[in-house]
Amino acid sequence: MKIKEFQKMIGDIYLARDAARGPDKSFLWLLEEVGELTRAYRRGELEPLGSEMADVIAWLASVANLLNIDLEAELLRKYPKMCLLCQSVPCRCPAR
Amino acid sequence: MKIKEFQKMIGDIYLARDAARGPDKSFLWLLEEVGELTRAYRRGELEPLGSEMADVIAWLASVANLLNIDLEAELLRKYPKMCLLCQSVPCRCPAR
Repeated sequence: MKIKEFQKMIGDIYLARDAARGPDKSFLWLLEEVGELTRAYRRGELEPLGSEMADVIAWLASVANLLNIDLEAELLRKYPKMCLLCQSVPCRCPAR
Repeated sequence: MKIKEFQKMIGDIYLARDAARGPDKSFLWLLEEVGELTRAYRRGELEPLGSEMADVIAWLASVANLLNIDLEAELLRKYPKMCLLCQSVPCRCPAR
Protein backbone atom coordinates (compact mmCIF):
# COMPACT_ATOMS: atom_id res chain seq x y z
CA MET A 1 0.00 0.00 0.00
CA LYS A 2 1.25 3.47 -0.82
CA ILE A 3 1.87 5.89 2.03
CA LYS A 4 -0.49 8.35 0.38
CA GLU A 5 -3.22 5.70 0.17
CA PHE A 6 -2.77 4.81 3.83
CA GLN A 7 -3.07 8.46 4.91
CA LYS A 8 -6.20 8.86 2.77
CA MET A 9 -7.66 5.67 4.26
CA ILE A 10 -7.11 6.97 7.79
CA GLY A 11 -8.88 10.16 6.74
CA ASP A 12 -11.79 8.19 5.29
CA ILE A 13 -12.19 6.30 8.55
CA TYR A 14 -11.29 8.88 11.19
CA LEU A 15 -11.22 12.46 9.84
CA ALA A 16 -14.66 13.42 11.14
CA ARG A 17 -13.82 12.15 14.63
CA ASP A 18 -10.31 13.64 14.49
CA ALA A 19 -11.66 17.04 13.44
CA ALA A 20 -14.25 17.00 16.22
CA ARG A 21 -11.51 16.15 18.74
CA GLY A 22 -9.16 18.77 17.32
CA PRO A 23 -5.40 18.73 16.69
CA ASP A 24 -4.25 19.24 20.30
CA LYS A 25 -6.13 16.26 21.68
CA SER A 26 -5.27 14.18 18.61
CA PHE A 27 -1.58 14.98 19.16
CA LEU A 28 -1.93 13.80 22.76
CA TRP A 29 -3.36 10.50 21.44
CA LEU A 30 -0.31 10.20 19.19
CA LEU A 31 1.95 10.65 22.21
CA GLU A 32 -0.05 8.11 24.20
CA GLU A 33 0.59 5.57 21.44
CA VAL A 34 4.30 6.45 21.47
CA GLY A 35 4.18 5.73 25.20
CA GLU A 36 2.56 2.33 24.64
CA LEU A 37 5.16 1.49 22.01
CA THR A 38 7.95 2.53 24.38
CA ARG A 39 6.51 0.49 27.25
CA ALA A 40 6.26 -2.63 25.07
CA TYR A 41 9.83 -2.13 23.85
CA ARG A 42 11.22 -1.44 27.33
CA ARG A 43 9.51 -4.58 28.65
CA GLY A 44 10.88 -6.68 25.80
CA GLU A 45 7.36 -7.54 24.64
CA LEU A 46 8.21 -8.10 21.00
CA GLU A 47 4.85 -9.53 19.95
CA PRO A 48 2.77 -6.31 20.27
CA LEU A 49 5.53 -4.02 18.98
CA GLY A 50 4.45 -4.16 15.35
CA SER A 51 0.86 -3.36 16.31
CA GLU A 52 1.98 -0.44 18.47
CA MET A 53 4.13 0.89 15.60
CA ALA A 54 1.06 0.69 13.35
CA ASP A 55 -0.89 2.76 15.91
CA VAL A 56 1.82 5.42 16.02
CA ILE A 57 1.83 5.71 12.22
CA ALA A 58 -1.98 5.84 12.13
CA TRP A 59 -2.08 8.67 14.67
CA LEU A 60 0.66 10.49 12.78
CA ALA A 61 -1.59 10.22 9.72
CA SER A 62 -4.55 11.56 11.72
CA VAL A 63 -2.60 14.60 12.91
CA ALA A 64 -1.14 15.10 9.42
CA ASN A 65 -4.65 15.08 7.95
CA LEU A 66 -5.79 17.74 10.41
CA LEU A 67 -2.79 19.93 9.51
CA ASN A 68 -2.92 19.31 5.73
CA ILE A 69 0.49 17.60 5.75
CA ASP A 70 1.16 15.09 2.94
CA LEU A 71 3.31 12.42 4.62
CA GLU A 72 4.41 10.73 1.39
CA ALA A 73 5.51 14.05 -0.10
CA GLU A 74 7.41 14.90 3.10
CA LEU A 75 9.15 11.50 3.10
CA LEU A 76 10.10 11.80 -0.56
CA ARG A 77 11.42 15.31 0.03
CA LYS A 78 13.59 14.10 2.91
CA TYR A 79 14.68 10.76 1.42
CA PRO A 80 14.91 11.29 -2.34
CA LYS A 81 17.77 8.90 -2.95
CA MET A 82 15.90 5.75 -3.91
CA CYS A 83 16.30 4.60 -7.52
CA LEU A 84 12.79 4.62 -8.97
CA LEU A 85 13.63 1.67 -11.25
CA CYS A 86 15.16 -0.86 -8.87
CA GLN A 87 13.85 0.79 -5.68
CA SER A 88 17.22 0.46 -3.99
CA VAL A 89 19.72 2.84 -2.39
CA PRO A 90 22.22 2.98 -3.96
CA CYS A 91 20.84 2.02 -7.37
CA ARG A 92 21.41 -1.68 -8.09
CA CYS A 93 20.07 -1.73 -11.63
CA PRO A 94 22.03 -4.09 -13.88
CA ALA A 95 24.36 -2.16 -16.17
CA ARG A 96 22.55 -1.17 -19.32
CA MET B 1 5.82 5.13 -2.67
CA LYS B 2 4.74 1.95 -0.96
CA ILE B 3 5.29 1.65 2.79
CA LYS B 4 7.25 -1.54 2.18
CA GLU B 5 9.50 0.24 -0.33
CA PHE B 6 10.13 3.08 2.10
CA GLN B 7 11.12 0.67 4.88
CA LYS B 8 13.45 -1.16 2.50
CA MET B 9 14.98 2.13 1.37
CA ILE B 10 15.68 3.13 4.97
CA GLY B 11 17.35 -0.26 5.42
CA ASP B 12 19.45 0.24 2.29
CA ILE B 13 20.66 3.60 3.57
CA TYR B 14 20.89 3.07 7.33
CA LEU B 15 20.76 -0.61 8.35
CA ALA B 16 24.52 -1.01 8.79
CA ARG B 17 24.69 2.08 11.01
CA ASP B 18 21.47 1.15 12.84
CA ALA B 19 22.76 -2.36 13.55
CA ALA B 20 26.09 -1.02 14.83
CA ARG B 21 24.22 1.38 17.13
CA GLY B 22 21.80 -1.33 18.25
CA PRO B 23 18.04 -1.27 18.94
CA ASP B 24 18.15 0.48 22.35
CA LYS B 25 20.06 3.53 21.12
CA SER B 26 18.06 3.55 17.87
CA PHE B 27 14.84 3.58 19.89
CA LEU B 28 16.18 6.56 21.86
CA TRP B 29 16.80 8.35 18.53
CA LEU B 30 13.17 7.64 17.61
CA LEU B 31 12.03 9.21 20.88
CA GLU B 32 14.28 12.21 20.31
CA GLU B 33 12.55 12.78 16.96
CA VAL B 34 9.15 12.46 18.66
CA GLY B 35 10.38 15.16 21.06
CA GLU B 36 11.38 17.44 18.19
CA LEU B 37 8.01 16.91 16.54
CA THR B 38 6.23 17.68 19.80
CA ARG B 39 8.29 20.83 20.37
CA ALA B 40 7.52 22.13 16.87
CA TYR B 41 3.81 21.38 17.36
CA ARG B 42 3.68 22.94 20.82
CA ARG B 43 5.38 26.07 19.51
CA GLY B 44 2.97 26.31 16.59
CA GLU B 45 5.84 26.01 14.10
CA LEU B 46 3.83 24.49 11.28
CA GLU B 47 6.54 24.73 8.62
CA PRO B 48 8.93 22.05 10.05
CA LEU B 49 6.13 19.75 11.23
CA GLY B 50 6.02 17.67 8.04
CA SER B 51 9.77 17.22 8.08
CA GLU B 52 9.69 16.15 11.75
CA MET B 53 6.90 13.66 10.98
CA ALA B 54 9.08 12.23 8.21
CA ASP B 55 11.93 11.81 10.70
CA VAL B 56 9.67 9.97 13.15
CA ILE B 57 8.50 7.58 10.43
CA ALA B 58 12.08 7.03 9.24
CA TRP B 59 13.26 6.14 12.75
CA LEU B 60 10.26 3.85 13.20
CA ALA B 61 11.40 2.11 10.01
CA SER B 62 14.96 1.85 11.36
CA VAL B 63 13.80 0.24 14.61
CA ALA B 64 11.38 -2.00 12.70
CA ASN B 65 14.22 -3.17 10.46
CA LEU B 66 16.34 -4.07 13.49
CA LEU B 67 13.44 -6.06 14.99
CA ASN B 68 12.30 -7.70 11.71
CA ILE B 69 8.94 -5.95 11.83
CA ASP B 70 7.16 -5.43 8.48
CA LEU B 71 5.40 -2.08 8.92
CA GLU B 72 3.18 -2.41 5.84
CA ALA B 73 2.01 -5.86 6.94
CA GLU B 74 1.29 -4.55 10.45
CA LEU B 75 -0.67 -1.61 9.08
CA LEU B 76 -2.71 -3.81 6.76
CA ARG B 77 -3.40 -6.21 9.61
CA LYS B 78 -4.67 -3.38 11.80
CA TYR B 79 -6.50 -1.38 9.12
CA PRO B 80 -7.83 -3.90 6.63
CA LYS B 81 -10.95 -1.99 5.69
CA MET B 82 -9.81 -0.18 2.59
CA CYS B 83 -11.42 -1.24 -0.69
CA LEU B 84 -8.56 -2.44 -2.86
CA LEU B 85 -10.35 -1.25 -6.01
CA CYS B 86 -11.31 2.32 -5.17
CA GLN B 87 -8.92 2.68 -2.22
CA SER B 88 -11.62 4.26 -0.07
CA VAL B 89 -13.23 3.46 3.28
CA PRO B 90 -16.06 2.72 2.95
CA CYS B 91 -15.95 1.43 -0.62
CA ARG B 92 -17.05 4.06 -3.12
CA CYS B 93 -16.89 1.96 -6.24
CA PRO B 94 -19.66 2.78 -8.72
CA ALA B 95 -22.38 0.13 -8.62
CA ARG B 96 -21.50 -2.67 -10.97
